[in-house]
Amino acid sequence: MSSSYGENLRLTIFGQSHSAAVGMTLEGLPAGVTIDMEKLRAFLARRAPGQNAWSTARKEADLPEFLSGLRGDVTCGAPLTAIIRNTDTRSGDYAPFAVTPRPGHADYTASVKYHGFQDPAGGGHFSGRLTAPLCIAGGVCLQILEGLGVRVVSRIAMIGGIEDRGELLASTADKPFPVVDGERGEQMRAAISDARAAGDSLGGIVECAVLGLPAGLGDPMFDGMENRIASLVFGIPAVKGLEFGAGFAVASMRGSENNDPFTVEDGEITTVTNHCGGILGGITTGMPLVFRAAFKPTPSIAREQQSVDLNTMETARLSVGGRHDPCIVPRAVPVMEAAAALAVYDAWLARRKDRG
Amino acid sequence: MSSSYGENLRLTIFGQSHSAAVGMTLEGLPAGVTIDMEKLRAFLARRAPGQNAWSTARKEADLPEFLSGLRGDVTCGAPLTAIIRNTDTRSGDYAPFAVTPRPGHADYTASVKYHGFQDPAGGGHFSGRLTAPLCIAGGVCLQILEGLGVRVVSRIAMIGGIEDRGELLASTADKPFPVVDGERGEQMRAAISDARAAGDSLGGIVECAVLGLPAGLGDPMFDGMENRIASLVFGIPAVKGLEFGAGFAVASMRGSENNDPFTVEDGEITTVTNHCGGILGGITTGMPLVFRAAFKPTPSIAREQQSVDLNTMETARLSVGGRHDPCIVPRAVPVMEAAAALAVYDAWLARRKDRG
Amino acid sequence: MSSSYGENLRLTIFGQSHSAAVGMTLEGLPAGVTIDMEKLRAFLARRAPGQNAWSTARKEADLPEFLSGLRGDVTCGAPLTAIIRNTDTRSGDYAPFAVTPRPGHADYTASVKYHGFQDPAGGGHFSGRLTAPLCIAGGVCLQILEGLGVRVVSRIAMIGGIEDRGELLASTADKPFPVVDGERGEQMRAAISDARAAGDSLGGIVECAVLGLPAGLGDPMFDGMENRIASLVFGIPAVKGLEFGAGFAVASMRGSENNDPFTVEDGEITTVTNHCGGILGGITTGMPLVFRAAFKPTPSIAREQQSVDLNTMETARLSVGGRHDPCIVPRAVPVMEAAAALAVYDAWLARRKDRG
Amino acid sequence: MSSSYGENLRLTIFGQSHSAAVGMTLEGLPAGVTIDMEKLRAFLARRAPGQNAWSTARKEADLPEFLSGLRGDVTCGAPLTAIIRNTDTRSGDYAPFAVTPRPGHADYTASVKYHGFQDPAGGGHFSGRLTAPLCIAGGVCLQILEGLGVRVVSRIAMIGGIEDRGELLASTADKPFPVVDGERGEQMRAAISDARAAGDSLGGIVECAVLGLPAGLGDPMFDGMENRIASLVFGIPAVKGLEFGAGFAVASMRGSENNDPFTVEDGEITTVTNHCGGILGGITTGMPLVFRAAFKPTPSIAREQQSVDLNTMETARLSVGGRHDPCIVPRAVPVMEAAAALAVYDAWLARRKDRG
Repeated sequence: MSSSYGENLRLTIFGQSHSAAVGMTLEGLPAGVTIDMEKLRAFLARRAPGQNAWSTARKEADLPEFLSGLRGDVTCGAPLTAIIRNTDTRSGDYAPFAVTPRPGHADYTASVKYHGFQDPAGGGHFSGRLTAPLCIAGGVCLQILEGLGVRVVSRIAMIGGIEDRGELLASTADKPFPVVDGERGEQMRAAISDARAAGDSLGGIVECAVLGLPAGLGDPMFDGMENRIASLVFGIPAVKGLEFGAGFAVASMRGSENNDPFTVEDGEITTVTNHCGGILGGITTGMPLVFRAAFKPTPSIAREQQSVDLNTMETARLSVGGRHDPCIVPRAVPVMEAAAALAVYDAWLARRKDRG
Repeated sequence: MSSSYGENLRLTIFGQSHSAAVGMTLEGLPAGVTIDMEKLRAFLARRAPGQNAWSTARKEADLPEFLSGLRGDVTCGAPLTAIIRNTDTRSGDYAPFAVTPRPGHADYTASVKYHGFQDPAGGGHFSGRLTAPLCIAGGVCLQILEGLGVRVVSRIAMIGGIEDRGELLASTADKPFPVVDGERGEQMRAAISDARAAGDSLGGIVECAVLGLPAGLGDPMFDGMENRIASLVFGIPAVKGLEFGAGFAVASMRGSENNDPFTVEDGEITTVTNHCGGILGGITTGMPLVFRAAFKPTPSIAREQQSVDLNTMETARLSVGGRHDPCIVPRAVPVMEAAAALAVYDAWLARRKDRG
Repeated sequence: MSSSYGENLRLTIFGQSHSAAVGMTLEGLPAGVTIDMEKLRAFLARRAPGQNAWSTARKEADLPEFLSGLRGDVTCGAPLTAIIRNTDTRSGDYAPFAVTPRPGHADYTASVKYHGFQDPAGGGHFSGRLTAPLCIAGGVCLQILEGLGVRVVSRIAMIGGIEDRGELLASTADKPFPVVDGERGEQMRAAISDARAAGDSLGGIVECAVLGLPAGLGDPMFDGMENRIASLVFGIPAVKGLEFGAGFAVASMRGSENNDPFTVEDGEITTVTNHCGGILGGITTGMPLVFRAAFKPTPSIAREQQSVDLNTMETARLSVGGRHDPCIVPRAVPVMEAAAALAVYDAWLARRKDRG
Repeated sequence: MSSSYGENLRLTIFGQSHSAAVGMTLEGLPAGVTIDMEKLRAFLARRAPGQNAWSTARKEADLPEFLSGLRGDVTCGAPLTAIIRNTDTRSGDYAPFAVTPRPGHADYTASVKYHGFQDPAGGGHFSGRLTAPLCIAGGVCLQILEGLGVRVVSRIAMIGGIEDRGELLASTADKPFPVVDGERGEQMRAAISDARAAGDSLGGIVECAVLGLPAGLGDPMFDGMENRIASLVFGIPAVKGLEFGAGFAVASMRGSENNDPFTVEDGEITTVTNHCGGILGGITTGMPLVFRAAFKPTPSIAREQQSVDLNTMETARLSVGGRHDPCIVPRAVPVMEAAAALAVYDAWLARRKDRG
């Protein structure tokens, strides 16, 4: 099912950008897990809009209401459901896009798939707003993983062609604008401002690492850690590429260069390098699981674009007004962490079956 | 399940490199489909080893035996099962790798996951040989898609850092070494020879396009065409990256540049450019669905590498003998087509439900 | 996943008896379906408590709030989510049952499974209240099926050993106490009153028929119509048996008696009798699909029973106060129809793929 | 998928009665399980035809060939695939049934579903022969369960209206004709002979108990032990009814009678009676899990029956020749055990995730 993910942990996401609410149901969580609600809210705040200069001015409280699955703040084994009411919505803004689809958006393809019955307001079920319930689910998993000694960290690796420098460190992830090289971060923010001023937008890359994983997590073939993560990450709007470890760079490397030699450290087997991104044969090596996703520039731009009037079948000019992030990448950082946490914890639960 | 894929069409792959057979079961095919066995064999031959100078000398007939699902050559609605017997195997070659895992292979991770009970011979269930049954399933889907006006084509986009030039054309895909620019193809082959001579190996990129798709195929969120293709493609051994349309290049583009303007051609809505790779919101636009996967250099290399002796926990030197492709990329081309065909036909069947 | 059902249509049910809300998400509905809300409310009212002399006095509005999946009252292709707030709840009533589990309830088994973290109030996720969201989903499917010429009807076939007489007719289903033989219905209601007066409860049998189905619906083996219906019906609390057509009576029949001879009627193939309940090889014959489910007597009874104090591990006496149906069977009738509608419509969507 | 079952353990069954082979793939078995092949063959022999006076004369070696998933006789973590070649087949026998469908068989419904492309020989994928691969999978699970202290036993509870007397005991299950009351067994065998002599057939009931289960196995709602078992048992050809514990008898019982009082035995919580069949809220109580399935009389009978000629659409007389069991019930006994073992072991693996 298109809005569901997972095997041992099953996430279902529902809602449209302007429906009564967006929300999620997460089945398969063990009973007895205490959710730190303050921490969860802090995590969700990282994704929320209207936080700072480089994101949309649209304001939302985005506080989840838990409908089921808890006694107090402790999971009881029943499906966990939380919703976020949609309040600050202006559906009227979107009426024209049902007739003149926005380039780079799902307006046209949804219209074909759903024969005109789709909900176009705010992008409907295709809206980036649906990453809020993804973050509720992922935020809960992050807390559980932390208790298991696993941490997910990430950074902005590139925005508008400007690349961060240096290695992703656990400490990087704590910054409000998470880059290693502050100077590069400045340049990225300046580029975002420029794009906004030009009525345009920028894309970028988010890098994510899962630290503290044991070796042996994941499965061969279609349930490898790569497949599991890809199934979720390509569900985040705007993602057009995904790579693990050395990624696309392997196409220019020799085997002797790319292969990660095994070695022993503190009595544990590890690898000298980590070109494989902590995954061999779909299964974790015990090294950091590293991946990067490419986000396209926000398709909603103030600059005039060409589209087609579906009624007259004539080309038409259109300019997307309203409040939009000129660059979605900073807000995508916690979403990537949420996706990583869900994929990893689902695999973690799967591993419990390996000994029968 | 790790060795299964699909929702409307369900593929299960079984076998180890040196078990009695490898094979596949494909459930959900409509009854009444005639399989052109000659065509299927020709397709499988493109993946088979020992075909030419740039691949392994290991010879296999690789002719599938169909055990069920057919009356004559026509599907009868029951699960379709085919096997390929494993014959030319030399299990003894692999005994040492259970103790001293090969860098870049799943020897170590499988050993952790399966507590030493894995089948190490020839890489076991992790072997590239398991792409043969994937090609049986995909080959059948390719034939069905062709009947629906859909064609899957691909090319070698890069090997060892040498990039093909020009656009992927349907005609490119018919060449024995499928590149647009023959001169670049020459350079790639020379680079493979060099790597082999040096006891080393090369990685590369395969580009794939699905032509003739209608708009409206695919689903939002986790069942988008990207997710569907990713679930399969990351199941092909050695794939470390996957991108759609402009892919990672979107990170350096502006929205005004990346957005594909809509236009009308022959009374049909289409886009002027195709940076989105024929997918918006997970759903096809009707333009070619374009994706590229990065393959790492074959991890089996003759050059000496460092590993660890799992018994003594001391580092050890190892050199992987036997018959191995110095570059897997040319043989990966039909495997990518098979994966694309499976993902697309599964989505095609899903679409039939859209009107209830 | 335990609280999810279906392949082409995916139902997820969430909530506990005394959590903020119970609800459901239904994925896979076609876009463009108009839901008749008045009709849906009337259907839900048939299941609602407090309606008449023979059910619990607990009152609930049980009006669903749709959170997503609609534009107005028309499906838009996105997951359909509806919730019912839990209001008239008295959690305190249930505190003792966490220590002294009620016989016939899931108090003890849930406590073992969830290590004491389950939500005991009102039976938690095991409560009969969870059939309300099942009826929302089923009620929507019933409306769609009606548009396809399919109708689901049912009756009370037995209560407390008193069997209804005569054949289930479409008109039977419209009665407030749906039995063919009114006299027997009187006896059943009297028996319920007697049981209530005695602080006791009664079980019974509900019979259900799906009329207007085409031949060819369903699948062999594990996706037969029996399997599909069983997966849902055994999810209704209190069901302990399920049979199709002649059911358990086949154990006393000869083949010549049980086999349904084929014949031709109005140019259509049909069967003279319908011992098979409209299903051969898991696939519909075009005759009414008939099944019966046995419901155990409500386990909550005022009469004193024996249990165990989990703290002291001594036997203890307990009497279940509160408002409980002395016989759940009348309210189970629409729940059975909902289950039938979900199973049948899921199979209907599956059939659309049969021609590829 | 119709020929697949399970969540943590995934079984796929393939083959037609007269295709090259029937077989199964079982994914999700832990690595390191030793299969006792002798024991497995002995288990399969219980289902095999041609064993004695009361079953078909058709002879089959039915020895499975394992194609993958093993090193020697030990599971290696990869999917386990085994096939049984079809040899003693006479396809010609079945040609007429494609035109004149046999009453009680899937000939007609399969023809509608597959538009005439189904494989009619020997019943194709609908044949009872497909229970052989089910028994391979179940036989392996039985061995694993035995190692966990769990045993599955069963008996013939009724044939042709003749009911066995007494309680199902573990020792009953070891008899060649497993009934408690030998005299009743004699009567059943005589009834079978009579039916055969009359060119007719008999139905019956098989009772099955799973002993040694811990409390806490299973899930609420759609993954209850009843649902899990029903999903498999209704996949066995000829099953028309299924009940747990007191089953349909609950419809005539009062709550005070049906509820199983809790008590303490040897410091463990248990129930005084077991009307619930060892399941409350879908979850095991620790008492024997008891269920019964009703099997219809073999539809293939020598006596003349009425059918329809699909070409002329005229009614036609037909008599089913060939070798057929006059009563399938004795051979169904191990099939029920196989189904039980698969359902239980799948739930066992699921339970491992309950603590996260």
